[in-house]
Amino acid sequence: MAGEIPARLAAPQLAWADRWWRAANYLACAQIFLQDNVLLREPLRPEHVKPRLLGHWGTSPGLNLLYAHLLRAAHGLHAAPLFVAGPGHGAPAVLANVWLEASYGAVRPEMTRDAAGMLRLCRMFSRPGGVSSHVGPHIPGSLHEGGELGYGLLHAYGAVFDNPDLLALAVVGDGEAETGPASGAWKSIHFVNPGRDGAVLPVLHLNGYRIAAPTVLGRMDDVQIARSFQGMGFRVLTVAGGDPSAVHEQLAEAMDAAISHIHAIQADWRAGRAQGRSTPDWPLIVLRTPKGWTGPREVDGLPMEGSFRAHQVPLPRAREDAVQRAQLEAWLRSYLPDTLFDAAGRPLPDLLAGLPPENLLPGNCRHADGGRVRLDLQLPAVEGIALALAAPGAVQAESTRVLGAWLREVFRANTKTGNFRMFCPDELVSNRLDAVFEVTARCTLQPVDADDEHLSPDGRVLEVLSEHCCEGWLEGYVLSGRHGLFACYEAFAPIVDSMVNQHVKWLKAASEVPWRRPLPALNILLTSHTWRQDHNGYSHQGPGFIDNVLNRKHSHVRVYLAADANTLLAVAQHALQSTGRVNLIIAGKQHMPQWLNLDSAVRHCAAGAGRWAWAEGAGADQPAMVLAAAGDVPTLEMLAAADLLRRFVPDLAFRVVNVVNLLALAHPLDHPDGMPEADFDALFTPDRPVLFAFHGYPHVIDGLVHARRQPGRFHAEGYREEGATTTPFDMVVRNRLSRYQLAAQALELAGRGDDRANALREHCDAKLAEHALCIRTRFDDMAEIRDWRWPGSQPSWGGLADEKPR
Amino acid sequence: MAGEIPARLAAPQLAWADRWWRAANYLACAQIFLQDNVLLREPLRPEHVKPRLLGHWGTSPGLNLLYAHLLRAAHGLHAAPLFVAGPGHGAPAVLANVWLEASYGAVRPEMTRDAAGMLRLCRMFSRPGGVSSHVGPHIPGSLHEGGELGYGLLHAYGAVFDNPDLLALAVVGDGEAETGPASGAWKSIHFVNPGRDGAVLPVLHLNGYRIAAPTVLGRMDDVQIARSFQGMGFRVLTVAGGDPSAVHEQLAEAMDAAISHIHAIQADWRAGRAQGRSTPDWPLIVLRTPKGWTGPREVDGLPMEGSFRAHQVPLPRAREDAVQRAQLEAWLRSYLPDTLFDAAGRPLPDLLAGLPPENLLPGNCRHADGGRVRLDLQLPAVEGIALALAAPGAVQAESTRVLGAWLREVFRANTKTGNFRMFCPDELVSNRLDAVFEVTARCTLQPVDADDEHLSPDGRVLEVLSEHCCEGWLEGYVLSGRHGLFACYEAFAPIVDSMVNQHVKWLKAASEVPWRRPLPALNILLTSHTWRQDHNGYSHQGPGFIDNVLNRKHSHVRVYLAADANTLLAVAQHALQSTGRVNLIIAGKQHMPQWLNLDSAVRHCAAGAGRWAWAEGAGADQPAMVLAAAGDVPTLEMLAAADLLRRFVPDLAFRVVNVVNLLALAHPLDHPDGMPEADFDALFTPDRPVLFAFHGYPHVIDGLVHARRQPGRFHAEGYREEGATTTPFDMVVRNRLSRYQLAAQALELAGRGDDRANALREHCDAKLAEHALCIRTRFDDMAEIRDWRWPGSQPSWGGLADEKPR
Repeated sequence: MAGEIPARLAAPQLAWADRWWRAANYLACAQIFLQDNVLLREPLRPEHVKPRLLGHWGTSPGLNLLYAHLLRAAHGLHAAPLFVAGPGHGAPAVLANVWLEASYGAVRPEMTRDAAGMLRLCRMFSRPGGVSSHVGPHIPGSLHEGGELGYGLLHAYGAVFDNPDLLALAVVGDGEAETGPASGAWKSIHFVNPGRDGAVLPVLHLNGYRIAAPTVLGRMDDVQIARSFQGMGFRVLTVAGGDPSAVHEQLAEAMDAAISHIHAIQADWRAGRAQGRSTPDWPLIVLRTPKGWTGPREVDGLPMEGSFRAHQVPLPRAREDAVQRAQLEAWLRSYLPDTLFDAAGRPLPDLLAGLPPENLLPGNCRHADGGRVRLDLQLPAVEGIALALAAPGAVQAESTRVLGAWLREVFRANTKTGNFRMFCPDELVSNRLDAVFEVTARCTLQPVDADDEHLSPDGRVLEVLSEHCCEGWLEGYVLSGRHGLFACYEAFAPIVDSMVNQHVKWLKAASEVPWRRPLPALNILLTSHTWRQDHNGYSHQGPGFIDNVLNRKHSHVRVYLAADANTLLAVAQHALQSTGRVNLIIAGKQHMPQWLNLDSAVRHCAAGAGRWAWAEGAGADQPAMVLAAAGDVPTLEMLAAADLLRRFVPDLAFRVVNVVNLLALAHPLDHPDGMPEADFDALFTPDRPVLFAFHGYPHVIDGLVHARRQPGRFHAEGYREEGATTTPFDMVVRNRLSRYQLAAQALELAGRGDDRANALREHCDAKLAEHALCIRTRFDDMAEIRDWRWPGSQPSWGGLADEKPR
Repeated sequence: MAGEIPARLAAPQLAWADRWWRAANYLACAQIFLQDNVLLREPLRPEHVKPRLLGHWGTSPGLNLLYAHLLRAAHGLHAAPLFVAGPGHGAPAVLANVWLEASYGAVRPEMTRDAAGMLRLCRMFSRPGGVSSHVGPHIPGSLHEGGELGYGLLHAYGAVFDNPDLLALAVVGDGEAETGPASGAWKSIHFVNPGRDGAVLPVLHLNGYRIAAPTVLGRMDDVQIARSFQGMGFRVLTVAGGDPSAVHEQLAEAMDAAISHIHAIQADWRAGRAQGRSTPDWPLIVLRTPKGWTGPREVDGLPMEGSFRAHQVPLPRAREDAVQRAQLEAWLRSYLPDTLFDAAGRPLPDLLAGLPPENLLPGNCRHADGGRVRLDLQLPAVEGIALALAAPGAVQAESTRVLGAWLREVFRANTKTGNFRMFCPDELVSNRLDAVFEVTARCTLQPVDADDEHLSPDGRVLEVLSEHCCEGWLEGYVLSGRHGLFACYEAFAPIVDSMVNQHVKWLKAASEVPWRRPLPALNILLTSHTWRQDHNGYSHQGPGFIDNVLNRKHSHVRVYLAADANTLLAVAQHALQSTGRVNLIIAGKQHMPQWLNLDSAVRHCAAGAGRWAWAEGAGADQPAMVLAAAGDVPTLEMLAAADLLRRFVPDLAFRVVNVVNLLALAHPLDHPDGMPEADFDALFTPDRPVLFAFHGYPHVIDGLVHARRQPGRFHAEGYREEGATTTPFDMVVRNRLSRYQLAAQALELAGRGDDRANALREHCDAKLAEHALCIRTRFDDMAEIRDWRWPGSQPSWGGLADEKPR
């Protein structure tokens, strides 16, 4: 256990760091165990110990040690550093530090830096109505939750992009280091421009054990570890040991050397002395210290300190078991609390005197409260970019190419603030968004060859074949108040399902913290989508990310399905100025007919859903049924079905509804964008059958309309997990979403058995048979499918979307 | 481009490898481009070229080179090696090789090794009704699809576990190597026991580029790459160059050295000469060759070979553009097809003479067709393990502890075949499954300390803090015909959403391949589940993995929610003998009341859902409403609500239904386990309101019952994304799933406004207020919640589940 101040710590700074460390360890331990007598003014009694012991001691002394040394080093910085605690359940440590440095009290005034505040600190920890045992939005200076492991390093890199003065110390535990996302995050150094960006100082903290067994990295020797990270490009500084005084000295030296080296790299690049150099050898500290260091050596005759047993609560029976309680008291007293806190529970003056100025305290790092430093994007007009349509369907275009032109203008308009980036697993050109390369490039710090295209250390597009890196960097960028867009193949977006889950959990938890302000939205664009991955095959076909986003806390998510380019522009404009949520935007990149002019598209997006009167059958105000669609390909097929119905069964009264904001379908009690019941019934009628062609899995629609009147009248078609390497039209046929199948189903729902209906049925059957033959023999879709145009695409059509406000 | 056989290749083996490589390159190129004249017997005309060019040339020459050298090296092996092609769209290469070696023709007789077969090979490639451009189940010798990148290495390691004679050559592209899962997969070497397992020879194939830009690893130098992988523990062998003859020599040398070294490691361990040694320095080959090697040097005046432009189709206008067509013809002729194939299109005798015996051909690797080598598990009886209950609720137990005892017996019963493993992100003890450590241990090849527990190179439990590794290894293990269970925190299972998606896609695609047989089921157990993560907080609470599994092709998935230990045993027994699917099993680890004796549990599971008559109100055969539940916590709360209803409103006729097989709710047209309509109506009545307490998100139930009669009568409650560090009961209160909220809602649905009902309403309101106070002041649940017991838990109760068959 920690004892007296080691005599060897001659340097006052190290003595201070050791005292701070002991104070923080004391408080971490006290938070886990105590609900009273937190200053040990009297012998520890059972009722002083919490009945339910939560929080992890194992990681706390290491986090405290690093925080103490970061405070020490912060004297030499120009701005408050960001402390990113990757290890899970690390809140006892970080809370101890922010309480000690008073940044906690600055946002939660009741957390006074005295005995009363200390008691509150301990009592609130990990109790119902209190604070979580993970670092989270409740802690000032934090932008990363250590709940689900693996993303701390990515968040740190995301935060330092375009923040040249920011230093992020990112602690990666050896448990976290085993995860795939963390293993893939080390390559981030190749994307940090020392001239423009801040720096991350990663600390690989090896305490050797997960919950019950050794870690892989913990059982590798220092030489192996150093070699591995040197190979990745780091300058490795190793600090190891179990003797506090030696570790303090080594760690201080390593951290000072690391920060000096970072400053030297930055100075070279910023002074233009780094011409022609590639990725610098950014420093990395490997810190190997005992798990649960300074805690009980042995419990129940088994090793505790330095063992996996120290992972959680070392003395689980401290309340009821006198022996364990005595051990707890001895452990707490080993930090000599009377030498750390005065009679009123205040940290002694020398502890506070050693702190850097307030503006350099990690707990005051402004970038950790992204909502406060957020600068809204300057959004250029879409008018010059939007497509002019003479009639619905009169123009064919690639929706994302139009969006790309606008995103280029977004980059241009925000050059000065430099607070917009795009992230992509190497698909920006293939996603037809490459207009942005007229004004920026892909970022790399690695050597650039003459034959490379759009590659530069100054690029604002981050491409890497890792959805985890893209999403994690963007999260860090957004958590620190900036704006961005992650463009991803639809089928591979589920790779980051869990990351998005956790981000929305952060948004919800942060929205309940009074002092936090809303973050910029996290925008995800799925453009190589399920229906047009016919060439890439079954593995590339899957719209399940919609489901994942819909499962998140509803107030913090939106899902937009843009039927054409102008709708996509309107959605994007709205998304990029929204806050406190995740926007999922789905729009294809292939040539498709365009339906709405800009005005109509903007109104359509504002309403979320609306009638497309120009496509409806006769008598649509009293329809026999409703045809609805969401998504570009389903909209196309549904309109083609409407065309068939109008030609073959002109007396069928049907309505055509298009949904762009999917959550408009939700009940208003379930989602803020949910249409009021009256509007919903006005759109879909209160009782007519609705045939719904949906981009995703059909049960999504079933679930969304469940609380509406007569939900059973909704018949959704969508992706039924049927796919292959095939043609675009064969994709919709395989999933029962083709115009012919929709038209035939519409007749069923309308209950039409007359000659006209039967003629259309026969037509549809014949066309499907013809398609099957065409696929079998010519391996292609029928020409008439490719050539189909909306018959009203002459300029005489009346209005576009239904104009009625809702 | 490749030209004559280099004179330097003196060794006949190398000359053969070069000829094979040229033949495979020719065929890869032909598959991408040609639909006729595939042997170039006449000048290339437009109609010989496919109208739609798919497949990736960029990766093909590298894959062909490795396949050729693996064939060469296979002469010295005892069993056919497994070729794992990680790179995407690598099928042109692998198909070329399996056609050449005739393993393709062995499973698809029409793929004859002659001109007709070659024409079919080319025509079928990437066309509708043909074969995918990714390696997949349609290719013999393959167990990995290169569609979604990142998992090839994990599948290879999974396949070699417990297959001591198997060598897997796993090609990892430099694109794939950027992914998180692949980055985290290298640590697999610490889990391979050379005495018991086979070996993986990873080849990091650096061709330098992704689709449009350089790769991170491709731009690192050889020294960096070697250092990095040496640090991870590999013996690195680097082969680099663009001169075929030099590369052939170096690669042959490296592959021979690697295989010799593998055999030496295995020989040492198997002869007992490795006592005390830890993870061996398994070899790894770094192969750096030009992208699209031997393809066109330049196209349209821009570099092609060795450039990112070679990623997909180098000559995209070969059909319509005479210049490109001439380039294509020159490229194809550069392989000298007349020196490779005879007049009948058969490979020349010397090419075939150089092949190893049939039983050593990679395409014949039996482990790649797991369904064929599958040995069913010996499943021990559950009778001795199951809990004996005197009455429902009479016993409290931890469900997973009971399961753990049975899994211990599963390990015992299958010791000899060694075909069962468990995989866990370091939570097996915390998940109360540690009885298995009585008969096995955690596997590690790293040094074991005296203080470590249950750690051994011989362990059959694989724990690592990476859900990706656990899932990927299990997938490889199952794909090669063995059995296993992945135990995971529920909230973190979405980390592998996408992997499970792709596995089920493989199952569906494989089920359409006539020569493949069903694989053992992939079993996932979620036990640290949403409702009992009150201590771990909001980040650990999330049941979304259910949704992800339900989105998969229905015939290949099941979701089981076990309400108690005996039900869990019955489910597990069923799951471990099932095939061709993913079983998701959810069951808590905390002490909970036990409801069903073994007989009833087995019948309950067989039926999928049933009435629990002992809990129902009077007159349940003509009920006013139905109370339904799925999941252990919802079942507990619903039974407690039933208790309240019976006590306060004894004249309320209600039924109690429990659902264990969630997909029994689905419509029979949607899922094979979907209850027939008549049974569904018999269980839930055709028209009464149903209050459904569900473990997951409530809209899951909405979606499942949508196609049933009057779906609007189903009112589901479940997780509403409300959580915190709190108490177990507070979790259900926050999500409106508590007994008091359920009872009150039941009264609403039953339309009861009488005095009895109002008395219960007041009681519920009072109890909820009392709970809120208790949480605020005592930070704990009311004692009566913890102490609540089912009042019928005296031994006099009648039957358990409804006995009627359905």
